[in-house]
Amino acid sequence: MPRYKLVIEYDGTPFVGWQFQAVGDSVQQRLEDAIARFSGQDVRIQGAGRTDAGVHATHQVAHVDLEKDWPTDTVRDAVNAHLRPAPVAILSASRVPDDFNARMSAVGRHYLYRIVNRRPPVALDANRVWQVKWALDAEAMHEAAQALVGKHDFTTFRSADCQALSPVKTLSRLDVERIGDEIRVYASARSFLHHQVRSMVGSLQLVGAGRWSKRDLEDALGARQRSRCGAMAPSCGLYLIGVDY
Amino acid sequence: MPRYKLVIEYDGTPFVGWQFQAVGDSVQQRLEDAIARFSGQDVRIQGAGRTDAGVHATHQVAHVDLEKDWPTDTVRDAVNAHLRPAPVAILSASRVPDDFNARMSAVGRHYLYRIVNRRPPVALDANRVWQVKWALDAEAMHEAAQALVGKHDFTTFRSADCQALSPVKTLSRLDVERIGDEIRVYASARSFLHHQVRSMVGSLQLVGAGRWSKRDLEDALGARQRSRCGAMAPSCGLYLIGVDY
Repeated sequence: MPRYKLVIEYDGTPFVGWQFQAVGDSVQQRLEDAIARFSGQDVRIQGAGRTDAGVHATHQVAHVDLEKDWPTDTVRDAVNAHLRPAPVAILSASRVPDDFNARMSAVGRHYLYRIVNRRPPVALDANRVWQVKWALDAEAMHEAAQALVGKHDFTTFRSADCQALSPVKTLSRLDVERIGDEIRVYASARSFLHHQVRSMVGSLQLVGAGRWSKRDLEDALGARQRSRCGAMAPSCGLYLIGVDY
Repeated sequence: MPRYKLVIEYDGTPFVGWQFQAVGDSVQQRLEDAIARFSGQDVRIQGAGRTDAGVHATHQVAHVDLEKDWPTDTVRDAVNAHLRPAPVAILSASRVPDDFNARMSAVGRHYLYRIVNRRPPVALDANRVWQVKWALDAEAMHEAAQALVGKHDFTTFRSADCQALSPVKTLSRLDVERIGDEIRVYASARSFLHHQVRSMVGSLQLVGAGRWSKRDLEDALGARQRSRCGAMAPSCGLYLIGVDY
């Protein structure tokens, strides 16, 4: 059966997350339903990253096997037609070899975390950013973030429910930049632990607010204890923005 | 009575527009209600630009007279508290002289129009952009747009309902740029006619699609006939982004 790679954008706000759950509306379920209506097949898709409830994607990747050898533009347009009006869109569909696996073949994942750092409420970007009302020093956050880059035991920045066998991951990028009243955190790695980005951003926020020094962040990492993590940043500011193969 | 200048952000999606109307929910009404609940006064506010239904603002300006000499941060925070959960926020409040008038004193208005130029649906920026599915040449749009810059009779690009005494306006800027699959049109002038930006963007879209030449746009302007305007761009892509005094 021909295998297709799908690049997907979604607004995570109305969903329980990427992955199918017994109760609630998942992005995966919406996609499987739309593909079923288009192809007549009962399909299972696999995504590169299992985003949580409220987390967005501008570039999630999944793969699916279809019985028929459809033109890729037909797959994209037909699935999009059946997805409406859910805020999920196939940006592209392409043919890939049978051994391509959206999750297992990925060699890099890229996330963006958006903080709006101002006192007045957010009217236009509600559910799209984390609003932090007190002043944050983005330069201090960036400098401290470099302590997390590299190969480390990230137990401190990992959900208690994380099912990964090892807490050791290699973070290849953690950049913090300010653009006006917005602070953007870019995180890249081959793979991440559950809640890792939001845990790191929550702790970096403490650095930005002056409550933690870079040394405190290093100590938290070294402690390898979940209880040493800063309060986790909310899901609405997180975006999966790329997957490398 | 002390006069306050308010800088306001809003998501125009749920509103009938800036201005109070007999039926429907306006941004002006929401603000007047919130100010009344905070101050106990029955107030009228005046905005710099009367944005239409669905049009957004990152920087609308209004003025209001309050009986009491409140600290400006109190005005901002208290009105914001009473605005919730409407997608309207006061970004700043400041004291201004009694002769300051948000509408009459404005010497420059700045709009942004956002087009997403791609075939797949827009999941994350629904109601925030105009999606054009066919390829647009942003450079051709920019070059043609320069024919509209300067002092002209803009009758072609003016709503039939426009109440301005004269159709002559001086457009100081009309820049078109592409960033990835997004095309941004920046328009600046001392003041605009009703529907002028959306009318200009609608016609520029025809240039971008190759259906109009720059000469066609010039001819449309010179004809001074509303019927010569391209189909007006939808309101959801338009943002009021600045007002100069």
